[in-house]
Amino acid sequence: MYPDSIKNLIESFKFLPGIGEKTAERLAFSILDLEDEQTDFFSKSIIDTKNKIHKCSNCNNLTEDDLCYICSDKLRNQEVLCVVEDSKYVFLFEKLGMFHGKYHVLEGLISPLDGINPEDIGLNKLIDRITNEGIKEIIFAFKPSIEGETTSLYIKKILEGMDITVTRLASGVPIGADMEYVDSLTLERALNDRKEI
Amino acid sequence: MYPDSIKNLIESFKFLPGIGEKTAERLAFSILDLEDEQTDFFSKSIIDTKNKIHKCSNCNNLTEDDLCYICSDKLRNQEVLCVVEDSKYVFLFEKLGMFHGKYHVLEGLISPLDGINPEDIGLNKLIDRITNEGIKEIIFAFKPSIEGETTSLYIKKILEGMDITVTRLASGVPIGADMEYVDSLTLERALNDRKEI
Repeated sequence: MYPDSIKNLIESFKFLPGIGEKTAERLAFSILDLEDEQTDFFSKSIIDTKNKIHKCSNCNNLTEDDLCYICSDKLRNQEVLCVVEDSKYVFLFEKLGMFHGKYHVLEGLISPLDGINPEDIGLNKLIDRITNEGIKEIIFAFKPSIEGETTSLYIKKILEGMDITVTRLASGVPIGADMEYVDSLTLERALNDRKEI
Repeated sequence: MYPDSIKNLIESFKFLPGIGEKTAERLAFSILDLEDEQTDFFSKSIIDTKNKIHKCSNCNNLTEDDLCYICSDKLRNQEVLCVVEDSKYVFLFEKLGMFHGKYHVLEGLISPLDGINPEDIGLNKLIDRITNEGIKEIIFAFKPSIEGETTSLYIKKILEGMDITVTRLASGVPIGADMEYVDSLTLERALNDRKEI
């Protein structure tokens, strides 16, 4: 029914998460309304992203170079390391602009139920860095979950005896949230971690 | 903050309607999870769609050839012509699979307020077809709107004296709609167009 190229473009948009038939059709048609420069740019960006982006050889963050711009930046605090489960979180924190240390991106979180064991998430690389780079504090910035908790505790165990402060992000009631919609686990955590004012 | 190619890809996704910063970021990252064949296919589909798709020389429907597959199909009813405002509607009706006549895609609808006059929407091509192709019935399938109404009445006026049945899609209460949420214009039309059962 659709001409081949439109049909292929609709299929392409459906590769993306959360994009179904109708949205894919709408987006495919919108490509016809773009300027030639825009479609060339779009097409090239897809190929470039796929071909040029790889993991930083030091921290696993995404980069086009050997070292990402954070690992290359000698002005950043070299003693604080924020450990995340996905490079997306690096960009999230960088956008916030509040953290000036370095990052390490794990290759996922420990999750025995999914068959992901400690040796699968690249912990050796992290431990090597902590040993070699003179890290003084390590911050776990995982999303609150069983897997995040497990991974944090596992790494903390490995680091036992080393002179390193180990912290995690505070959990609690989100700012602006309606108390009645906050789940009981979050509320429990907020109560346990209450702060003196 | 983002490597160049990811930054460019985020910008590219923002060219598309309804896609803001956050969605563009999410989609750009999802490109990294695709296979090489998928990204090649995606990239090529964008360029192909932009380069190969043009209007059918007869009916303005989108095609990669001189004539679209509907105009080329001699088995279709050659005497009924469905006039639409956008080629999207052709695909919508074809998906439905209920209409077996031919289509004509106008270049928009008459809208004096937006400076779109009868001579701007390619009416000559439509009138030529009606005269030359022996059309017996013409169906206006515009979305219900002042512009659709104006355009229908204007074309009907031109066709006066010719032996052609002129119809429009029925308007009324959508199947499954809650009566209380149907707007008053629709309800008025549904009442006026009531059918004996």
